[in-house]
Amino acid sequence: MNTDSLTFYNGAETFSKKLSGRGSFVLVMGYTETAAIPGITVAGASPELMCYTPPLDAELVHTGRILTLENIAMTADAIPTPGLITRAAITLSDFREYYVDAGGKISPFVAHYRVGNGPGADIRTGRAVPSAKQTIENARKVGKEIAAESEYLVIGETTPAGTTTALGVLRALGMDTNGVTSSSMAVNPQSLKDSVVREGLKNAGINGQCDPLKAIESVGDPMMAATIGLVQGAQGIPIILAGGTQMAVVALLISKIMDLSKLDLALSTTRWVVEDRSANLLGILKCTGADIPVLVSNLSFARSKYPGLLAYEKGVAKEGVGAGGICAAAMLKGVPKEKIEDTVESIYSKMVGN
Amino acid sequence: MNTDSLTFYNGAETFSKKLSGRGSFVLVMGYTETAAIPGITVAGASPELMCYTPPLDAELVHTGRILTLENIAMTADAIPTPGLITRAAITLSDFREYYVDAGGKISPFVAHYRVGNGPGADIRTGRAVPSAKQTIENARKVGKEIAAESEYLVIGETTPAGTTTALGVLRALGMDTNGVTSSSMAVNPQSLKDSVVREGLKNAGINGQCDPLKAIESVGDPMMAATIGLVQGAQGIPIILAGGTQMAVVALLISKIMDLSKLDLALSTTRWVVEDRSANLLGILKCTGADIPVLVSNLSFARSKYPGLLAYEKGVAKEGVGAGGICAAAMLKGVPKEKIEDTVESIYSKMVGN
Repeated sequence: MNTDSLTFYNGAETFSKKLSGRGSFVLVMGYTETAAIPGITVAGASPELMCYTPPLDAELVHTGRILTLENIAMTADAIPTPGLITRAAITLSDFREYYVDAGGKISPFVAHYRVGNGPGADIRTGRAVPSAKQTIENARKVGKEIAAESEYLVIGETTPAGTTTALGVLRALGMDTNGVTSSSMAVNPQSLKDSVVREGLKNAGINGQCDPLKAIESVGDPMMAATIGLVQGAQGIPIILAGGTQMAVVALLISKIMDLSKLDLALSTTRWVVEDRSANLLGILKCTGADIPVLVSNLSFARSKYPGLLAYEKGVAKEGVGAGGICAAAMLKGVPKEKIEDTVESIYSKMVGN
Repeated sequence: MNTDSLTFYNGAETFSKKLSGRGSFVLVMGYTETAAIPGITVAGASPELMCYTPPLDAELVHTGRILTLENIAMTADAIPTPGLITRAAITLSDFREYYVDAGGKISPFVAHYRVGNGPGADIRTGRAVPSAKQTIENARKVGKEIAAESEYLVIGETTPAGTTTALGVLRALGMDTNGVTSSSMAVNPQSLKDSVVREGLKNAGINGQCDPLKAIESVGDPMMAATIGLVQGAQGIPIILAGGTQMAVVALLISKIMDLSKLDLALSTTRWVVEDRSANLLGILKCTGADIPVLVSNLSFARSKYPGLLAYEKGVAKEGVGAGGICAAAMLKGVPKEKIEDTVESIYSKMVGN
């Protein structure tokens, strides 16, 4: 099926019929020191401020404001976080909200669960998340608690440099995927990502194919561990992994740990990720056998009067903070796509002050 | 006024008429290494396990179960945490719940705000909470967020050895209060507390009267800093400090920082604290000039068939986790005292398995 608002792949139409009730949005915050490598991501104002992105995203989604830093004056060509889209969808519907710190440097001023043990290391060290196993176990307990009061879950993430760690894990698992993870940047910095990943794999002593836990521990990030645990703990209700190639890698990891047929798992992202020619979301899922249903939110900011939002149409930012998935869930509840787009425009106009 | 259920002091009857709407319960979790001093507190199974008490209290209040540790088999003479009383009151009413980690070793499996920077040090060092100022500032922001969605607050705490740090702060402020803070123990270990406090003050170089921030930084605990900030941030709505002598000291600290007449602040505790002959709750408030309204919940477990609950009638445990205050608020909403007592009995009977 292909409507204006949503496109369905791999049986996602059948999956979408299972979503009923309020549903819950879960935002997993993760940080990896990999994000401080200059040029690797634009998911933050500067390398030094990159670690603020996850808590600020949580604050924006929950309150519509940022609290940890003083309000940053934004110019009308500043490209906003996809968290702005998530905030719009949240205000237009009745989702319950949960926030999970998978491992960060800064705690948000939003009530949250903590399942990790501080930020992940720069993956070049080959020792990215030594405590991944414990994080998975903690997250499993949290997933169970959340699922007990939820009809279904939409799990999004905010992890600067997460497409680089995703590439690292793909390679660690022995997949020949040069160039298949996406980027927040208009021009995907593939050769930089490539050399970062190569160094990490070398220092971890991985050459060939390793098991999923070792892949995360060596070149992954805390978000991956937390999301795997949340999914396992929430087993029994429908779950949407809301994100692009990062979440595709999480789906792949889960498929290596357990039988996917025991889960009611789908992936949902934005049109901007699916249209990204430098990456290949559906390809990752297909060639790895983790070809779960995929729901694509056909959002467009082409009508916007702001350069910062029009940039999304040029392939900047694209996805994150569960934007595509929460919009898909909201649209399935009956919120019109245009209403979400208009709300994004309106929130953004207040941010830039005109 | 004195009814069977509640006793009012210092104009608390007038204060209580201001409480309307749902109201919110806020639990502040704090840890100080002072709690690991053998013999100083019974608020935990052993010195090593003492740091689990705050997260387990949060889990018990929120879920009715404990999640961080495997369920501990309890015998019928085990004295339960006052968190059990709080849990009973929570299940019988419609309070919103908020959890705040002021500085702990272990995070609870309950969504919470983090305002501190790890546990407080053993006060014998004289450098108990060096980051108290930052904690107050963080908590102020959280208090403002919580107040925005609350009609009034009941702020409780769970801080093992908190009566010892309370004594420390009283002395640091230059008050001659030997023997006026209470204890979770039937026999208040006054001489041990006294020598611990004396050592802390000596190492902090305090002899005389110091300012409130210095008192917390030197011989206080993270809970105090967080609670002060929460109260300041929530200014504008009625606030109940729910606790015994520890909360009286928090009230005293607040009175040294700001004009109490700008707040709508009261204290509420259990009958067991007020009847404690080794301490003097009302005396602390009176002789320090912080004589805010006091609401006393006249709970009694004399009807219980369990030694663990009957122990409360002998002066063990007495108060904590906001038990007295949340029961007072529930009773003011119309929940009968006997109903709370019966619910405690029933939850406890399930815990001990008969």
